[in-house]
Amino acid sequence: MKQLKSESPPLYDSEPWKISETSLSLKNNLLSETIFTLGNGYIGMRGSFEEGMAGADCRTNNGIYLNGFFESVPIPHAERGHGYAANTQTILNVTNSRIIELYLEEERFSIASGTVLSYERAIDMRKGYLIRDLLWRSPSGREVKISIKRLISYKNRHLVAFSYEIEPVNFSATIKIKSALNGAVDNHRHEEYDPRFSASLGGLGLSVTDIQSDGEKAVMLQSTQRSKLKMACAMVNSLSGVKQRRVEIERSNTLVSVNYQFEGKKNEKVTLEKYVAYYTTRDYPEDELCPLAERTAENSRNNGFQALLSGQEEALADYWHKTGVELDGDSFTERGLRFNLFHLFQAAGCESKTSIGSKGLTSEGYDGHYFWEAEIYMFPFYCAIMPDQARKLLEYRYSILDYARSRARELSHPRGALFPWRTIAGEEGSSYYPAGTAQYHINAAIAYAVCKYIEMTGDYTFMLSQGAEIIFETARLWEDLGAYNLRKGNRFGFHEVTGPDEYTALVNNNCYTNLMASWHLDFAAKTARRMSKEYPEEYKNIADKIDLQDDEPVAWQRAADNMFIPYDEILQIHPQDDSFLDKEIWDFVSTPAEKFPLLLHYHPLVIYRYQVCKQPDIILAHLLLGDRFSLEQKRRDYNYYEPITTHDSSLSPSIFGVVASELGYHEESYRFFTISSRLDLDNLFKDTHFGAHIGNMAGSWLCLAYGFAGMRTQHGKLSFKPVLPDLLKKYQFRIFFRGTQLEIQVDQNKVVYKLLQGNSISFKHNDVAVKLATGEQFEGTYFKNNSITS
Amino acid sequence: MKQLKSESPPLYDSEPWKISETSLSLKNNLLSETIFTLGNGYIGMRGSFEEGMAGADCRTNNGIYLNGFFESVPIPHAERGHGYAANTQTILNVTNSRIIELYLEEERFSIASGTVLSYERAIDMRKGYLIRDLLWRSPSGREVKISIKRLISYKNRHLVAFSYEIEPVNFSATIKIKSALNGAVDNHRHEEYDPRFSASLGGLGLSVTDIQSDGEKAVMLQSTQRSKLKMACAMVNSLSGVKQRRVEIERSNTLVSVNYQFEGKKNEKVTLEKYVAYYTTRDYPEDELCPLAERTAENSRNNGFQALLSGQEEALADYWHKTGVELDGDSFTERGLRFNLFHLFQAAGCESKTSIGSKGLTSEGYDGHYFWEAEIYMFPFYCAIMPDQARKLLEYRYSILDYARSRARELSHPRGALFPWRTIAGEEGSSYYPAGTAQYHINAAIAYAVCKYIEMTGDYTFMLSQGAEIIFETARLWEDLGAYNLRKGNRFGFHEVTGPDEYTALVNNNCYTNLMASWHLDFAAKTARRMSKEYPEEYKNIADKIDLQDDEPVAWQRAADNMFIPYDEILQIHPQDDSFLDKEIWDFVSTPAEKFPLLLHYHPLVIYRYQVCKQPDIILAHLLLGDRFSLEQKRRDYNYYEPITTHDSSLSPSIFGVVASELGYHEESYRFFTISSRLDLDNLFKDTHFGAHIGNMAGSWLCLAYGFAGMRTQHGKLSFKPVLPDLLKKYQFRIFFRGTQLEIQVDQNKVVYKLLQGNSISFKHNDVAVKLATGEQFEGTYFKNNSITS
Repeated sequence: MKQLKSESPPLYDSEPWKISETSLSLKNNLLSETIFTLGNGYIGMRGSFEEGMAGADCRTNNGIYLNGFFESVPIPHAERGHGYAANTQTILNVTNSRIIELYLEEERFSIASGTVLSYERAIDMRKGYLIRDLLWRSPSGREVKISIKRLISYKNRHLVAFSYEIEPVNFSATIKIKSALNGAVDNHRHEEYDPRFSASLGGLGLSVTDIQSDGEKAVMLQSTQRSKLKMACAMVNSLSGVKQRRVEIERSNTLVSVNYQFEGKKNEKVTLEKYVAYYTTRDYPEDELCPLAERTAENSRNNGFQALLSGQEEALADYWHKTGVELDGDSFTERGLRFNLFHLFQAAGCESKTSIGSKGLTSEGYDGHYFWEAEIYMFPFYCAIMPDQARKLLEYRYSILDYARSRARELSHPRGALFPWRTIAGEEGSSYYPAGTAQYHINAAIAYAVCKYIEMTGDYTFMLSQGAEIIFETARLWEDLGAYNLRKGNRFGFHEVTGPDEYTALVNNNCYTNLMASWHLDFAAKTARRMSKEYPEEYKNIADKIDLQDDEPVAWQRAADNMFIPYDEILQIHPQDDSFLDKEIWDFVSTPAEKFPLLLHYHPLVIYRYQVCKQPDIILAHLLLGDRFSLEQKRRDYNYYEPITTHDSSLSPSIFGVVASELGYHEESYRFFTISSRLDLDNLFKDTHFGAHIGNMAGSWLCLAYGFAGMRTQHGKLSFKPVLPDLLKKYQFRIFFRGTQLEIQVDQNKVVYKLLQGNSISFKHNDVAVKLATGEQFEGTYFKNNSITS
Repeated sequence: MKQLKSESPPLYDSEPWKISETSLSLKNNLLSETIFTLGNGYIGMRGSFEEGMAGADCRTNNGIYLNGFFESVPIPHAERGHGYAANTQTILNVTNSRIIELYLEEERFSIASGTVLSYERAIDMRKGYLIRDLLWRSPSGREVKISIKRLISYKNRHLVAFSYEIEPVNFSATIKIKSALNGAVDNHRHEEYDPRFSASLGGLGLSVTDIQSDGEKAVMLQSTQRSKLKMACAMVNSLSGVKQRRVEIERSNTLVSVNYQFEGKKNEKVTLEKYVAYYTTRDYPEDELCPLAERTAENSRNNGFQALLSGQEEALADYWHKTGVELDGDSFTERGLRFNLFHLFQAAGCESKTSIGSKGLTSEGYDGHYFWEAEIYMFPFYCAIMPDQARKLLEYRYSILDYARSRARELSHPRGALFPWRTIAGEEGSSYYPAGTAQYHINAAIAYAVCKYIEMTGDYTFMLSQGAEIIFETARLWEDLGAYNLRKGNRFGFHEVTGPDEYTALVNNNCYTNLMASWHLDFAAKTARRMSKEYPEEYKNIADKIDLQDDEPVAWQRAADNMFIPYDEILQIHPQDDSFLDKEIWDFVSTPAEKFPLLLHYHPLVIYRYQVCKQPDIILAHLLLGDRFSLEQKRRDYNYYEPITTHDSSLSPSIFGVVASELGYHEESYRFFTISSRLDLDNLFKDTHFGAHIGNMAGSWLCLAYGFAGMRTQHGKLSFKPVLPDLLKKYQFRIFFRGTQLEIQVDQNKVVYKLLQGNSISFKHNDVAVKLATGEQFEGTYFKNNSITS
């Protein structure tokens, strides 16, 4: 595995609930901008400064993103092929509403001039806003205290607000404050070469269509060129603490600014409040955007900043109560995990038309695309903590089902649906198909999430209204994609597919894919049988709608039952695919540390030629389809694959952590858990400056719940097999299951399950059935000495 | 196979030696421009009109190309990867020297106005120039005879010349003739989507650096932007047939024209002669280009047009004598074959710094790149007819050996050389690596050509000076690329490679690749042993230069001897690769004719998933390494693969034709031979408008010599096993073998071998040794009734 080292002391987390820095590191500026990103699932705003970084010797990406708001950028295929993705939908850096400039006489406040005498930037994760407190001395010696609060509302998804307080310390002077909206925005241009960043907009980008202003208010309308989307950004400003001031509107083609001028007095505080709202045509008609944005900003100004702050605290209190996560004995890892949970909260807020990108809204990395990790990594977390949010993630998939159907036709499948490997609004945007479209397993990931949603919530209404249609259409694709192979005992399998491990591509019978497809086909066939019996009318409606023939579920079942699962009798392990074990093992000994991640230093033809994995493949199936493998089998597979896995993907450590725990590799499991928990906060992968890794963030929670506590849902049953890692005195977390809330506490002596809310709950503790009624709790023991040296 | 239909009557070949059209087809204009292309291996000029096509309702590509003169165009990888080709070297459409405009008073001659009363465009393949004769009536009724001759000198590679004669038929008037060089050139922009065309220059292209003019002469200097190449084009004009004329120079930033004005008299002929020369910095220093070009054009003018015409006839007489090809009984196929031979002559003329692109110089298709077909398809022809040219093709490969070494390093090979899949000056230019860089077999193709060159010519000096270094460096790559596989009996093989058949990619143990690599490694090891014994000094020099260790040839031999060759015991055939037979066979029955070629209508993920071939793979090995297979084995392989081959590649029919003949499938063989012979002349692949298929053109000759006559060289021995196809009364051709010239005639009674030139020759006729001395001939019989129904 690559060298993963946390800085000591940690850069951002000296206190339990606080992410903060007390000195500014220009070198780490891009990273800090990611770390201090605020978001509410709809708006994401990187932690860049209100005054900008002009003149400072550092890189900056002051992105602001709206979930689902994108430009359609043509993919420049040097050599085109039929059915190649034509466009990529790239999330856009939108109207910069963050701008607040301060002038003391003619001296403009900037961290690139004068002297910063004291400094703090921080987010209190129980409060939900970003603060920045400075004492700045201007080049001519004027000292001013600046205290900034910034928030993105957790209660109104369209709303952003700033409070910008200044206090002259040793002078009185004419002061100007400019509060602006800047429409001259572009996506971040990165000099580094890295396929994981975003597409270049190449001249595409937002143009300003209209600007209106009135007193201390302004609204800007912007539009995209190719995706034909429009957005409005309104601001309402309010200055307090001075009696006299001049207010002027400054305008250009792409900027509108409300400029205040007043006589600043020594030791007298003046505060600008700025309320901003964003609306787009993905939700509303064009002519309503500006009025809606203005009204939202204005209402919020009328309610005042304090109301917003209280709202933030309230929302977080509720959230932290729901998660109930505590680690006793390792505050270092706990702070990382908490940071991850905070960002998972900030990433949530999808409303059926959008999902969660692999970077959330913390950057435009991966073009803001939604991948399978929304279903396989993030979904189980949301399903346990915020089941409504989980349902919306699935509703999003339903909303793009027509795109998935078209995509299947482009790939010559006469029936069925193939979900895009990466997209925003539904169009396939993967430009490198061997590690994109070839990952057919995304179809199974979505079906799997539908199944788990119903198991965890009991909400079969989703199955009837949307879920079954998704499951049937995607099952059809497997049936058409695969074939029975007489040379493999007439087993069913798939050629030219890519599994989750992207260091091997275009293989035959990828073990993970075959297993998941088998599960999927079986689930689809069972669902068809159940619905036709229990919900005949709903079933008939769907069958009519998608022209489902009676013999199709039969064919699904047959394919599921006859799926070829590669197995090597000599090593007694599951080969990753038909030819994986034929290859040489990567020469790890001769590979220097700086050659990781391999994808940046070796041609795919080199990487694909060896046994080397970027991330779990069959090991992920151990977690998702755990009952298909004996513990011994899992152990043999794990022992084979872990040593040849580079963990170059951020999606790797958490899954290995979960499975290692099940196998009793507790030390190793805990190491993965810590890596997963601290991955972004300590920039362990050296790319957090290009955005946080939301999939991994959810993965760190999986390490806790699915790993240490051994939580599973299988066939609708909840179960636990807890262990306590050596380093911990105690841990706890909470989940929702079928409307009841359960708390799990594990300490050095016992496991305590408490029903916090709801009528009753049934589950298994170490294979023993437990049933709790309201207010009841159950104490159990766990096996302490089941550690096995790997 | 796709629908291949010749037009009846044929479009261009009503007479045995003449390619001609007597009416102008605007619809076929692009095609005709290809068909009437002139070239000499250095300059290629499409058959477009001197007056241009302005106003005509047709597409045109008036390209003029200089072999090896290119721009380096960045490859726009949407998702970049380490070691991806960064640039593609695209051949450039250079200074348009073809322009001759004619004005009768103010009426400009154009095929888009007035009336063409009679018309012929033709190339007599024994004369070597393009003629165009017209009788044109202007919109106002003036009738003028126009008679144009155009040639590209076969004796001076830099030279182009035009003779433009006009004769007023029914009028006298002021006539203007403008003879221009136009530097505002760009590559052809094609609206159709097809990966086989050229890269877009995207604003890159030639700019005009300097223009000089003097009297009736002018010279233009142009330069590229990124490849930093420069070229000069000079013209010298001369007008005869009038006493009085005004001569003016017209100039703009990108054009220079010599404009003549005179009083044209009814029935009095006036002739403009225009001599043009091209020189580039790929051959000469920049400051010499203009003087050289001017001098060449001027000298040629001084010698006169007639001298050039004679030179052309002379060169062709020599060439046709060398080829000596005749088919008696099928003039339709003979005319196609002759057209192919004519273009093979026009494509030859490489001078060690260049090779022959897959389109020759007939268009910028495939960016003018050189591929493996230069060695596998074209080379055997040149080696038999123009051995000096064959050596120069190999010297070209030696000239880019350093690029091949660098490319190997980019792909993480510590030693050895990997030749680019497609290039002009040596840099790998394949943007889609699965059907590009992954075709490692190009290394073997080059080594194979070196071997065949020495077998056919006996010229071991090439081996000592360049050949061995090529062979050793490329053998090293195989050794590093491959691995011994305990799961396959510790056999040596290769993973993630693509064989010649591009409808399957990134496979393990491609049968063709393994066979050719085995041959290559064996040949390299043997060469090392032979040289170290017979040429110890030369061997030491090479070994020192490339740091060749003593144990390397031993390792090559071991890998060669232990190569894994996939074989299926059930079907008793060679699987194309490890997993080929696991796949479903393509559903040909349900695939409509318009879906061919498949690559334009199916995503690679679909095509790769099936047993379906674009072109011969293992079948090509049957030809190249014929002694490794029994006839029965070849027949089984052929019977399996031919039905699943679409022949979507123009490189397909000829090889199937050769092998079918050996197998006794005479009818089928002849069908392939006819397709191959008529492929461009009848536009059978519907893409000849984007250039001729030079590889196939050579392939049609292979059908004759290697197919019907069963010619082979193996271990330095020449042999024949002739048959006479049913449709023919007789055929003949000639070859050079070790300096002697041999004629082979096969008629309905006998085979006659004549030693035309040289001292003596040994060969086998149907396994019987024959030796001929000067002037001798041998008559043999052949098996007439060995047809087998396939």
